[in-house]
Order: sequence, then C-alpha cells, then structure tokens
Amino acid sequence: MSQALDPVGLAADLIRRPSVTPADAGALDVLASALEGVGFTCTRLPFSEPGTPDILNLFAKIGTGGRHFCFAGHTDVVPAGDPQSWSVDPFGGVVRDGLLLGRGAADMKGAIACFAAAAAQFVAKRGADFGGTISLLITGDEEGPGINGTVKMLDWLEARGETLDACVVGEPTNARMLGDMVKIGRRGSLTGHLTVQGIGGHTAYPHLADNAAHRLVAMLTALIAQPLDQGTEHFQASTLQISTIDVGNPATNVIPATARASFNIRFNDGWSGAGLEEWLRRTLDGVGGHYELEVKVSGESFLTPPGAVAALIADAAEAEIGRRPEYSTTGGTSDARFIRRLCPVAEFGLVGLTMHKADEAVPVADIAVLTRIYLGVLERFFAG
Amino acid sequence: MSQALDPVGLAADLIRRPSVTPADAGALDVLASALEGVGFTCTRLPFSEPGTPDILNLFAKIGTGGRHFCFAGHTDVVPAGDPQSWSVDPFGGVVRDGLLLGRGAADMKGAIACFAAAAAQFVAKRGADFGGTISLLITGDEEGPGINGTVKMLDWLEARGETLDACVVGEPTNARMLGDMVKIGRRGSLTGHLTVQGIGGHTAYPHLADNAAHRLVAMLTALIAQPLDQGTEHFQASTLQISTIDVGNPATNVIPATARASFNIRFNDGWSGAGLEEWLRRTLDGVGGHYELEVKVSGESFLTPPGAVAALIADAAEAEIGRRPEYSTTGGTSDARFIRRLCPVAEFGLVGLTMHKADEAVPVADIAVLTRIYLGVLERFFAG
Repeated sequence: MSQALDPVGLAADLIRRPSVTPADAGALDVLASALEGVGFTCTRLPFSEPGTPDILNLFAKIGTGGRHFCFAGHTDVVPAGDPQSWSVDPFGGVVRDGLLLGRGAADMKGAIACFAAAAAQFVAKRGADFGGTISLLITGDEEGPGINGTVKMLDWLEARGETLDACVVGEPTNARMLGDMVKIGRRGSLTGHLTVQGIGGHTAYPHLADNAAHRLVAMLTALIAQPLDQGTEHFQASTLQISTIDVGNPATNVIPATARASFNIRFNDGWSGAGLEEWLRRTLDGVGGHYELEVKVSGESFLTPPGAVAALIADAAEAEIGRRPEYSTTGGTSDARFIRRLCPVAEFGLVGLTMHKADEAVPVADIAVLTRIYLGVLERFFAG
Repeated sequence: MSQALDPVGLAADLIRRPSVTPADAGALDVLASALEGVGFTCTRLPFSEPGTPDILNLFAKIGTGGRHFCFAGHTDVVPAGDPQSWSVDPFGGVVRDGLLLGRGAADMKGAIACFAAAAAQFVAKRGADFGGTISLLITGDEEGPGINGTVKMLDWLEARGETLDACVVGEPTNARMLGDMVKIGRRGSLTGHLTVQGIGGHTAYPHLADNAAHRLVAMLTALIAQPLDQGTEHFQASTLQISTIDVGNPATNVIPATARASFNIRFNDGWSGAGLEEWLRRTLDGVGGHYELEVKVSGESFLTPPGAVAALIADAAEAEIGRRPEYSTTGGTSDARFIRRLCPVAEFGLVGLTMHKADEAVPVADIAVLTRIYLGVLERFFAG
C-alpha cells in the first residue's frame, strides 16, 4: 500500500468509463481499485427505489478515528451530446496540448482524482495512523434525480454512527482560473405551480365571464413587481423567474376558464422556503380570485460560515497560487445542500468553463495544482 | 302561383334537412321549392375555393325593379352535439307543447320561413308587379368560415348590377321575448397574436438571460390596465380579452426565450381596426423589448342609423305586439357586417335563448307573430 497515485492517469481512466447517469460503467471500480491500492477501505452502496433507476455509490475511508475529513463528489456525468461537436472521443480520456479532454474532466472526475492523489500523498507522509479519518463519499446520481445518491449515503453514514467534521465538495467552482472561487453556501430553490380558476365565456360577452388569463397576469405582475430583497452579506438578491405560462386555448374568441404558470425562486439566507410560501400566498391573496398554488422547496438556502472549512481551502489555495479565492454563494444547487446538515461544507474544484459542453477539458497543470491545494487542506485540517 | 305558404311547416321541413355546415342536405331545395311556388325566381350559387369546403347558397327574387328589400339569412346550422342531451330528434322538425323543436329552429331556419311566408302574403295581396323587388339572400356558410357564403354572394350581386335599398338579417336577436331587440350595428373584432423574444437561460443565472415570460406579462398588463373607452351613444365599451398565453416550457429551472399570447378586442364605433393596431403597437413599444404582433381585423364596427331600416322593424313590431324593441349593438358578429357596405341593414329574428343548445326550440306562436312583423316591415317599406 501507499504507492504513488497519478491523478492525471486516474482522471483519464475515469473518463474512459462512460458513466452517464444512471450508468456506472465501471467508474467506481476504477476509483475503488486506486484507493484500495493506497490503503482505503471501500464500501459499495447500491441504492434503489421503485420508479427510479438503480444507482451505485461508493464510500472509501482510511484512518483510525479522530476528526473526520470527507471529500464528496460524483462519478456520473451528463451525456456527451452530439459526438460530431467533439474534436476527440468524449470517453477517450485523451491528453492533447496540455489539456485532459473528455466528458467529466471538469465536472468532476478530475477533482476526484486530485483528492484521491492528495489523500494518498498525505497518508504516505503521515502514515495510516495519522490520528484522524479521511473519506471519499462518491455518488453516481448527482446529475440525475439524486434520489438514490448522496441523501441515502448520508442516511447510511448516520445509521452507522459515522460523524463528519468537515467536507469539501469537488464541484468545478472556478469560473475562469483555478483559485477564483470557494463556494460557501448556496441559495435555496423553490418551485411554484400556480393554477387560476375563472369563468369561461365568449370574448363578445366578457361581462358574463371571469378571464383566468387576466387574473393570472395580475398575479404574476404582483409576484415580479418588486425585487424579493437586495441581497445579504454573502448572497446575491433573491430572484423569481417565471418559467412557463400555459393556457392552451386555441379559440381566439373564447375566454379561458383556467390558466397556469410555473416559476422558480432562488432565495438567499434572508428567506426560508416556508417564509417564501407565506409571502407568495399573501401576495396572491392580495390580488384576489380563486387559485391553487403548489410549492416545492428543493433546497433551503445555506451558508457555511467562512471561518470554517472554507478558510482552509482559501489558505491552501493562496499558499499554492499566490491569490486568495473569493467566497461565493452564486450558482445552482449541489449535493452540498444535503451534506451541510452533517458538518461544515465548502465547494472547490477545477475550472467549470467547459462543463456540460463539447470538448470538456481541464489543463493537466491544474490537476497537479489542485492536488497540492487539496493536500494543503488536509495538512491544515489535521495540523490542529 | 301565390299560394299560401305555411311558415311552421316550412321551418319544420328545413329542420328535417341536417344542413350542418358545410352540408346543405337539401335544405336550399326545400326553400327554393317553397319560394318558386309563390312566384320567386331562384338562383343557386355554389362557391368554392381551394382549402375550403364547397358551399351552396341561394338568391331568390320577386318583383319588377324599383326599390329592393332584401332578407338575409343562413340555412346552415351548428352540429346537434350529443343526441342523448336532446329530448327529440334534433333533425325531426317535431312540434310539441306549442314549441317547434330542432337544430336551427331559432338560428335561423324559423326566421327564414317567417320571411318567406311574409313575402308570399305581401305578393298575394299586392301582386308580383307591386313596383319593387323583394329578395332572399340565403347562405350555407354562416356558422363556418364564411368564405364561400355571403361575401361572395354580395360580390355576385354587385357584378350583376343589383342594388339593395334595405336589408333585414333574420338572426335570433331577441334575448328572452319576441320584440326585445333590434340590432342596428355590431362591434368590430380584432384578434392579435403577440410573440415576445427574450434570451433563454437558467433560473439560477437570471442576470445572463432576459425572461420572455416577464416581458409578456408586462405587455399584457399594459394592454389590460385601462378600459379602452367608456362606450359610445349606441355601443358598449370596447373590451380586450386575452384568450391564451403559451410558453410551453416544461423545465421549471429554465428561463424561456419566447412567449406567446393571443387576444381578441371587440370595439365600438370610436375605433377602427387600424386605429386599434396603432394603439396596440404604441402601448407595446412603451413597455419595450423585441416583439412581433400579428393583427387580424375580422370586422370593423358599424352602425346603421336607427332612423333607417331599424325604425321600420320597431314600428312593425310595436304595432303587432304593443311594445317597441330596443336598439342594440351588443353580441357577436353576423353577416350584417358584410351587407352593411351595400345598404342599411338591421337584424331581427326569433328568440335566441336556446340557439346552439340541446332542445333548440321556438314557440309556434312566435313564428306567426314574426311573420306578421316581417309583413308589416314590407308594407311600411313599400308604402312610400
């Protein structure tokens, strides 16, 4: 055990397994084999649920108790899209002109390989009895519905009495250059489905009808009339975006009886999902008329105080590349929203510029630098 | 010739021909045969046009020149709908409990029979050389697209040099009782199709997008914010009704790039279609953003001064039933909107309460009274 682990080689090997959600395609075997080679104990965690695809996940652990540092990520990737739009085989794991190309290079097989290599170096230096625990919590269901992935793994950890003390999620948080950004929280997300009932009729006799489309326009106007807030210390302003409005009435001389709209709210730590729903109903009641509102909160907003795990990342990055990443809460959701109920969590990975696109790629040099930053995080975490 | 013509029998015979648009089903033959029996000359006018159903129409005329009084109507009917919802055969022409039942009884085979009987009585009394002309202009395409009906018959009349001096359209203008209402004009109708272009995106990054649904809501709000007017002497206020709004975006986390809506404006004689379009574009420009507006004016508003043909009807009705119908411009469009460019036109027929419904029916007594009113109109028109 404790051989060197080449992160570029491991990342390329992972890319060569076309693990498009929900397929694993052997990706987790590649990772487990590399981690077992440096002393990790690996547990496969297959989860299933009626009506959803079966998902394979992996929990890999090394150490002897004490404080527990977890790295979280996913080996599943989004589809390659049109192969004609790629200049290489998206699942070839090709290195060309200093770039590692392939689906998942940035999001996020590259970062997984960096962390595995950093952990291997840390253990090689300090020994497996370094007085703490390092784990990798790797799901195959992050790009999919997320039902048989991180949430069930966290339940499994809790059932076993495993506690985490800090977690880094290896999502590609850097917009342009490695070291741009550590994500220390995310906005919450609420989706609303609004159905307005009126009374149908003929456009020549509007006094006999109650136009549901007019009521809906008034309600939507009320919802978008004012900004939800002006932002908070670490967050952008909350935003409401109408995603669709559908009446589906083909007859231009008919007044519709029913009109529907859906919207999505990304909200900061000034709101809770429940508080937003209350605001929504109060605003809609203010317009008046009969409506039904179905609300789904897919994630509350959360913030890891910058002083916790985020500072370790920023310190390690600054030491390695000479500039300090900014703390941010922008962007979409990630599995960090689940992990944050167990321990402080921050996100930091490779450059996301090409993620989900053709010719997804990361500089080979960045893989080496990110490996050193992750090593620096482990050294700082276990120095205390 | 000049035999008596029984209006109830003729109406029942017409109902027995299931002339659901575009079918004629022999209805115009029944009418032509009755009219020829009392001295009318009948001309079948079949019209066709690629992409539309062939339609049979009828022009029937009696007289020797001089002033020309025209009765306009349609033998086509809307479908019967679910036969289970009828208590009789919708095409049986059944008389029960003093009611003539069947599809078209009110709208408007009954009124056609009344006018045919009134004309027959008038000619029987005054002779065919009464010094004027009486005609029936009967289309089979009023409930349908109206392309091969009244418009082409009017073109045909003009091409032959026929001039009309007054016209009554036999639509069921009476809401509850015979004698309620003479229609002396109709509002115009404009349909608008509005497409708004924005920039699509992800709801987590609204600053990179331009939500087309938000722009559309703002535009629609501007269109319905204020009443178009307060009505004019003979007209209700103009109204704008949104008939549909459609984005069709199934992904609640996606900001739509395109949003569409359609609306219908019923406008009084304070507006023209062109004036309304100008107002629409000015209002939409005021909101701002890229949009496309397609406008279709299916009829301008029109008014026949109450002193013309409408007064003849009101006088005749008052003499017959002891109360004077009110002049109105309410309700939907009719073929009067085409005829009004040739001569003064007003609408008066049976009671419309059951039109387009199951168990459509008119009192047999009303058929006799309407026949006498139409006769009174002819006597007054040709008295001068």
